[in-house]
Amino acid sequence: MTLAISIDTIHAADARLRGHKRVTPLLSSPFLDDIAGQRILVKAECLQHTGSFKFRGAFSAISALDGPERARGILAFSSGNHAQGVALAARLHGVPAVIIMPQDAPAIKINNTRALGAEVILYDRDREDRDALGDDLAAKRGLTLVRPFDDPQVIAGQGTAGLEIAQQAADMGVTSAQVLVCCGGGGLTSGIATALAHHAPDMRVHTVEPAGFDDVARSLAAGEHRTNARTSGSICDAIVTPTPGKLTLPIMAQYCQAGLSVTDEQALRAVKLAYQRLKIVLEPGGAVALAAALFYPQHVTHDTVIAVASGGNIDDDMFLRAMNTAD
Amino acid sequence: MTLAISIDTIHAADARLRGHKRVTPLLSSPFLDDIAGQRILVKAECLQHTGSFKFRGAFSAISALDGPERARGILAFSSGNHAQGVALAARLHGVPAVIIMPQDAPAIKINNTRALGAEVILYDRDREDRDALGDDLAAKRGLTLVRPFDDPQVIAGQGTAGLEIAQQAADMGVTSAQVLVCCGGGGLTSGIATALAHHAPDMRVHTVEPAGFDDVARSLAAGEHRTNARTSGSICDAIVTPTPGKLTLPIMAQYCQAGLSVTDEQALRAVKLAYQRLKIVLEPGGAVALAAALFYPQHVTHDTVIAVASGGNIDDDMFLRAMNTAD
Repeated sequence: MTLAISIDTIHAADARLRGHKRVTPLLSSPFLDDIAGQRILVKAECLQHTGSFKFRGAFSAISALDGPERARGILAFSSGNHAQGVALAARLHGVPAVIIMPQDAPAIKINNTRALGAEVILYDRDREDRDALGDDLAAKRGLTLVRPFDDPQVIAGQGTAGLEIAQQAADMGVTSAQVLVCCGGGGLTSGIATALAHHAPDMRVHTVEPAGFDDVARSLAAGEHRTNARTSGSICDAIVTPTPGKLTLPIMAQYCQAGLSVTDEQALRAVKLAYQRLKIVLEPGGAVALAAALFYPQHVTHDTVIAVASGGNIDDDMFLRAMNTAD
Repeated sequence: MTLAISIDTIHAADARLRGHKRVTPLLSSPFLDDIAGQRILVKAECLQHTGSFKFRGAFSAISALDGPERARGILAFSSGNHAQGVALAARLHGVPAVIIMPQDAPAIKINNTRALGAEVILYDRDREDRDALGDDLAAKRGLTLVRPFDDPQVIAGQGTAGLEIAQQAADMGVTSAQVLVCCGGGGLTSGIATALAHHAPDMRVHTVEPAGFDDVARSLAAGEHRTNARTSGSICDAIVTPTPGKLTLPIMAQYCQAGLSVTDEQALRAVKLAYQRLKIVLEPGGAVALAAALFYPQHVTHDTVIAVASGGNIDDDMFLRAMNTAD
């Protein structure tokens, strides 16, 4: 079967993103190495513009549109990281962005998205059909929908993080490693896995999900789409989706190893350790890969593990909960 | 008068540090720009090894020693960031490090320094003479003292951050800016100012200190050394020293503009905003430059201000205090 993107799609996205994306550092701490009993490198995507990797995919998708299409504006559904990534990427292109959010989304997220210049349209989850609302708006205003993961240009944009990982690791003399990626719909994982398959073929990519929300791990094991029994109730909300993407699952099936999962408690401990030892702020969903690297040495097959820390948009209450987690 | 270092000293330090120092990113957020009413770029030295810029100077000094001297080992006095920087730099060179710390230093700092492989020797501030203890140890074991700032190779190591700033800013099209540096003894400021004078001559460097502990600002204004009335009682303890260095003050007098200062409250607000908007962890002393950039627009003379965020080794109680600071 033909995969949705090739390495060339990622290279093209990378060229468009140059000078706009932030090249995020690969961090480390001897204290984390001691806990894990192996070398851990952390790709700090929380330091990307808008606090998560989502900016890469959003900018890639918007920059890939033709001029008139882009000028009419962008539409996205999101109450979280994707919303902010799309809002800033649209602003940098000087084009309008409309973000459709549930009216019970946290005020801080609504305000942040508006502050980045987007028009936010709120809907009632119980009484309104989000997709119909979006279709109607798109038709009326000629807006182009940017999906959160199941879009070739979005996947290619996220894959630019994989190009950086291959280069930065090679600069440190690391060409063989396990690469753990926080996984929701699979856009980041499938992009990174494609990039590494071509630029660091001795690296092995694993998805990491919250325990109980491991649709990707089960789908990879089954060879077909599996769904989560529920999509709420995890503190790792940023990476909980009903099922893997139609485009992303075949890519992950081609390039990834067995999926891993961690508990909420382990994710919170990883948030705390990232704060203490790396001086970065992670949200629980952005810390699951680091948690797997720290707390599952039995899965280790390489001397080095690279954990992608995908986002840092955490609210104060959750951060305090992480700080108060037992060591 | 001849200054203690030249740009060549920094270039040589940079060559020795290559592959060992972390090239820290230059971060930004539209939310911070909105608060300040200007573009703010933040050099995130909290992401340097051991959580502060001190690693650069320590590694530079140790790597500049001749082989037999280095092999005998390193001595440092510090209860803070310098201790950890020296400990890790010595470990990376495979040589012993002895750190002399007051016995009432926080247990966490003593433990961190030991965990990095250093031998920690505790002394009683009231009953023992620290310098005599150090002289005795140095003589007996042939150890070389690495000073926290008043050493040409330490200053040159800190100056490598300035080389990075010049390059990273130029890559963004910024060649003219105000550069604000958190300043204690002046090692970081004088190193950065020397680097920028040669590689970004249109940038203007200002020291930033805690209000009430502005010995450098007063010394620069007076043209000779001034001292602080007290050296305890600031939450910005990492950057409080009795008086500027003998070597650093002439360099700062040559290259720097008038010194600025900020209140503890402003430093805490900067810690909070760095957590919220940049996803990095700063200590108050590492946040004073960002605080000046955010809250003193009246000092602004350029379109862009670059704030050096010098360190992130904050304890939980202080971080909670920052999170609870009013917006």
